[in-house]
Amino acid sequence: MIIVPEAVIADLITPEASFDAVEKVFASMAAKSASNFPVIREAIGHADALYGFKSGFDRAALNLGLKSGGYWPGNAEKGLTNHQSTVFLFDADTGRCRAVVGGNLLTALRTAAAAAVSVAHLARPDARVLGIVGAGHQAAFQLRAVAAQRDFARVVAWNRSPAKLDRLAAVAAELGLPFESVSLDDLGAQADVIVTITSSFDAILRADQVRPGTHLACMGTDTRGKQEIEAALLARARVFTDEVAQSISIGEAQHAVAGGSLRADEITELGAVINGRHGGRTSAEEITLFDGTGVGLQDLAVAAAVVDLAVERGVAIDVDF
Amino acid sequence: MIIVPEAVIADLITPEASFDAVEKVFASMAAKSASNFPVIREAIGHADALYGFKSGFDRAALNLGLKSGGYWPGNAEKGLTNHQSTVFLFDADTGRCRAVVGGNLLTALRTAAAAAVSVAHLARPDARVLGIVGAGHQAAFQLRAVAAQRDFARVVAWNRSPAKLDRLAAVAAELGLPFESVSLDDLGAQADVIVTITSSFDAILRADQVRPGTHLACMGTDTRGKQEIEAALLARARVFTDEVAQSISIGEAQHAVAGGSLRADEITELGAVINGRHGGRTSAEEITLFDGTGVGLQDLAVAAAVVDLAVERGVAIDVDF
Repeated sequence: MIIVPEAVIADLITPEASFDAVEKVFASMAAKSASNFPVIREAIGHADALYGFKSGFDRAALNLGLKSGGYWPGNAEKGLTNHQSTVFLFDADTGRCRAVVGGNLLTALRTAAAAAVSVAHLARPDARVLGIVGAGHQAAFQLRAVAAQRDFARVVAWNRSPAKLDRLAAVAAELGLPFESVSLDDLGAQADVIVTITSSFDAILRADQVRPGTHLACMGTDTRGKQEIEAALLARARVFTDEVAQSISIGEAQHAVAGGSLRADEITELGAVINGRHGGRTSAEEITLFDGTGVGLQDLAVAAAVVDLAVERGVAIDVDF
Repeated sequence: MIIVPEAVIADLITPEASFDAVEKVFASMAAKSASNFPVIREAIGHADALYGFKSGFDRAALNLGLKSGGYWPGNAEKGLTNHQSTVFLFDADTGRCRAVVGGNLLTALRTAAAAAVSVAHLARPDARVLGIVGAGHQAAFQLRAVAAQRDFARVVAWNRSPAKLDRLAAVAAELGLPFESVSLDDLGAQADVIVTITSSFDAILRADQVRPGTHLACMGTDTRGKQEIEAALLARARVFTDEVAQSISIGEAQHAVAGGSLRADEITELGAVINGRHGGRTSAEEITLFDGTGVGLQDLAVAAAVVDLAVERGVAIDVDF
């Protein structure tokens, strides 16, 4: 059994490797050669924690297993990340546990990679202005991953507390991109690509703030009740997602579907675009929207990539199990 | 993170330690301080395998986590056990993975321990004849664990292929107990305690074959459609179980409940007897029946006990994770 500790992962995996892993597994999902199993998520009644699993099997890559962990709000006080997770890979031929991989950095990378894959396949080729809504831990990963997908000239960003945009500004500077903190009106009026990455329970961005031709990657909504975007915008956009079942129940599309302005069969799996079964964006005027809900197969895909890299570079711990 | 490989577990944990761990967690479940999360079980479409999870949290013992693995029918050809599983324990205070423990032997021990706990609390004190129905891998574990709970004078056993009872006979000899291969009629007429441990999908033991005062531990039925005992026997018996929700859906009680001869509210959690909230057996004539379906909390309980023992004896592998 191979162990890849959290601490070595940053030196092993890149946004590019995460992009490749996530793009492949989205394609496998759309080709019906990979499926996610039901998600378990439980308030455990201790430490205010939410604990659970996301799991699945990709028959093409033979990645089988789960990510387990959750949200421990008291961790920050202890010097630990509030979101804690571990990925367990199983040998699809025998059912034996094959690898245990730290899942904290991987979760950020696979989420950012999903947005980046959506930008690569759905944003206008001439997109030049990147807009980011949100400034939490994940926002910097989103900026790094998405910035590489188009020839962006600058970044505009909005956050409820603008002071917290400093970290994002530093990442933009590192990437050589001019950065500006703007109003939501200005962000919508200027951006060609918008990534939303908040924990909001109310729509932040209104439909009339977004201009034709924009691609949105809505990455924050992963729970019933959360919402980043006015439902009217989903009704107006061509909507794509990682997994339709999650999109309509816990994703950004839940509100538009519940309100009757969007039907589940109008939502396309991003993997179908990657596979070439769906043409993706149909015009330069169309608004495309990717509802990124986060699936277990993404976690397995990046973890499997990390295991290969760890073995190759000699940093994997091999335990006789 | 502590690793306890499968190979060291046999020397660490005893049937007695498994008994204590399972008895405690059944009590915690009945006291509502421990709960199992929904079970995931999927045919993965590769190697004819069934893969899944059983998970839960015991707030009393602070055991949080899951057992993952399943059934790989081609393993035997490769020199591996068909049933493969691994237990993952999480730190309930932080959500970090605390331990990875081989789950194969533990699954057999915790299943046998459940039957033993039911015998300890429900069989007549003067039970002298132990009957075993089934001769598979699990049957020997059942015999060892249950034999210790009463002053048994002999063992009678039945299996569809009587020749396969040799292994069970050897265990009985080791325990100093006379052993006889008998018909089902004779088994029912002689046994005071009956353990059923088969993979049957049709009732094996009929109601009229079992005499008053018998305690049955039905341990084989853990899936919709499986059945070891005629439903009429459950209607006639006082029925106990590990978890009522599983008992009526995937346990032995599924058929009697579906047929209307037993109601869910007539089934008692064994933990309530352990806690003293339920008196258990009410007379020497009553038939008591334990429907052992197998819950994730049993796996966590025995795995946590193994981790403590492994650390104490210096055989735990500690990985900086």
